[in-house]
Amino acid sequence: MSRAYNFCAGPATLPEAVLNQAREEMLDWRGTGMSVMEMSHRSDEFVQIAETAERDFRELAGVSDDYAVLFMQGGASSQFATIPLNLLPEGGSADYVNTGIWSKKAIAEAKRYGDVNVAASAETSGFSEIPDQASWQTRADAAYLHYTPNETIGGLEYDFIPDSGSVPLVADMSSTILSRPMDFSKFGLVYAGAQKNIGPSGLVVVAIRKDLLGKARSNTPTMMNYQVIADNGSMYNTPATYSWYLAGLVFQWLKAQGGVTAMAAVNERKAKKLYGFIDGNDFYANPIKPRFRSWMNVPFTLADESLNGEFLKGADARGLLNLKGHRSVGGMRASIYNAMPEAGVDALIDYMTEFAKERG
Amino acid sequence: MSRAYNFCAGPATLPEAVLNQAREEMLDWRGTGMSVMEMSHRSDEFVQIAETAERDFRELAGVSDDYAVLFMQGGASSQFATIPLNLLPEGGSADYVNTGIWSKKAIAEAKRYGDVNVAASAETSGFSEIPDQASWQTRADAAYLHYTPNETIGGLEYDFIPDSGSVPLVADMSSTILSRPMDFSKFGLVYAGAQKNIGPSGLVVVAIRKDLLGKARSNTPTMMNYQVIADNGSMYNTPATYSWYLAGLVFQWLKAQGGVTAMAAVNERKAKKLYGFIDGNDFYANPIKPRFRSWMNVPFTLADESLNGEFLKGADARGLLNLKGHRSVGGMRASIYNAMPEAGVDALIDYMTEFAKERG
Repeated sequence: MSRAYNFCAGPATLPEAVLNQAREEMLDWRGTGMSVMEMSHRSDEFVQIAETAERDFRELAGVSDDYAVLFMQGGASSQFATIPLNLLPEGGSADYVNTGIWSKKAIAEAKRYGDVNVAASAETSGFSEIPDQASWQTRADAAYLHYTPNETIGGLEYDFIPDSGSVPLVADMSSTILSRPMDFSKFGLVYAGAQKNIGPSGLVVVAIRKDLLGKARSNTPTMMNYQVIADNGSMYNTPATYSWYLAGLVFQWLKAQGGVTAMAAVNERKAKKLYGFIDGNDFYANPIKPRFRSWMNVPFTLADESLNGEFLKGADARGLLNLKGHRSVGGMRASIYNAMPEAGVDALIDYMTEFAKERG
Repeated sequence: MSRAYNFCAGPATLPEAVLNQAREEMLDWRGTGMSVMEMSHRSDEFVQIAETAERDFRELAGVSDDYAVLFMQGGASSQFATIPLNLLPEGGSADYVNTGIWSKKAIAEAKRYGDVNVAASAETSGFSEIPDQASWQTRADAAYLHYTPNETIGGLEYDFIPDSGSVPLVADMSSTILSRPMDFSKFGLVYAGAQKNIGPSGLVVVAIRKDLLGKARSNTPTMMNYQVIADNGSMYNTPATYSWYLAGLVFQWLKAQGGVTAMAAVNERKAKKLYGFIDGNDFYANPIKPRFRSWMNVPFTLADESLNGEFLKGADARGLLNLKGHRSVGGMRASIYNAMPEAGVDALIDYMTEFAKERG
């Protein structure tokens, strides 16, 4: 088939222009006679690729020199341990907000390293809204406040950045990074698995305020020590060079699209269009309070769940792929990250319209 | 330029056929309309890719069902901590053999987690030979015996598998895996960063005997717990899918070459040819005792070190790349892994002959 519209939550669709460039450069990067994946990570060529990617990321996300930007491995799930190992002192306590499956995972792992205070939970609303910050039971002496700006599985997204006062704010931005402008100076640490808005899996980008470096516990694995990774420019050992290169291509593509401000306009339009359609059609439903609906991950259900299989089969036949919701929540989910073109959302709505007409 | 001969120690050259296939499949893997890097790791397509890669690896390396094969992230350097966290009980002791820079790194990290006994060291010979096993001061109650079959930087390689009795034998095979047949049943755990003989960086393949699973310390990060990774088929979180796919292509290529027996014949021929030339030419030298010379990494020096720059420049001009030795030892190093064709070694010898004639 030709290129499909792939609504997978991650690994997710990538810009076709990026894949085309990667294909062109596969056997010979700019006359070097080598693929990027064959280059020494310490070569002038790769260092240039790596530094350009970091510079472009900083520019896109608005990350100042007060932060170190790290290109690490192991995904966000490794960060769930890396963060307390680096930022939660023995005997200390950290605040977490529970808004769904990914924050729960972060909480469970952090609890293995110290006292975790769940300052607020969306559980009471069935994970349909973000608890009002006025109700959060945060602690002034917390080592940090961790939250998940966008829950990839539940499709629940903050429409505000929490005010953590002098407590460092830590955010798992895996599924929302670079989808819109934001004030980076409000964060102590941001991390994002690459496989949604950045590039292929196997890479996690971390931006940490430099004053938070150097606090790792003595038993922290060296490869999880932010200070060590920062001191070595993310090359303490061989990094995931090809993923780093592809992330760099995505950053260049984002810049060519007009950066995160332009992306935000497209992303908002895509999301509003899809939620608007769902709300206006009795056959489909989304359970999230409108204010907190994710721009990136749009879960929806069919009025008749017994038609789920047929819906997915028809979608597949049209090249609308990976619409099945996460096994923990069922239903459908359309992930519409930066790289999903607006035409993909239009095609999905066309199909949903037709399916509801014929089968609803 | 056309494809160069890339002698980099890692990330290293890959088979041109593998890169060609990756290029062909970049935008559309077998009619799915997706790149492999855009596929859900839980999709039928990717699970098939992943399982085929594991099966081929087992077949090539001779790994029985007594072992779990894990596709992890973080490189061999992460394993330096992962191994003691999983295999060295609090208060226990482990034996290590020091044969160069990589074993030293493994030792330094292990010391952070418990008592490490350096059972033998090649330091007394200036790292020019492997100490006779009869002289090793191993302990019968060691949790494991760790060694480095091939030292990538020093070019020092074991020509035997140590006999560890009932103590599990642990090997960092990053730079020698799949280069020849070996009796896998002698090992408790084998690990290998992919970026030499397996594929791109960002992947580390671990084979662990199943009776060694389930012993991780309570504070082990979940992502470093072998039992968790094994129980989840290396998909506890999103794995490095594209690297895994490329590793699979390399395994298929290896099988098409005739497997590790055929590779061993080529590798031995390449190494003998290059060492034979070095030994027969007064202008070049290799310091390693012949028995212990690496088939994979061939360090050599020029009689006149002031000509190093000129040698490298001339090599670059001919498309013979990355011959500079590691900064810690100087001189030159030609890494001639599985993917380096014999013609690359011939081209190197031709150049070395000419350079010695003109400038020696």
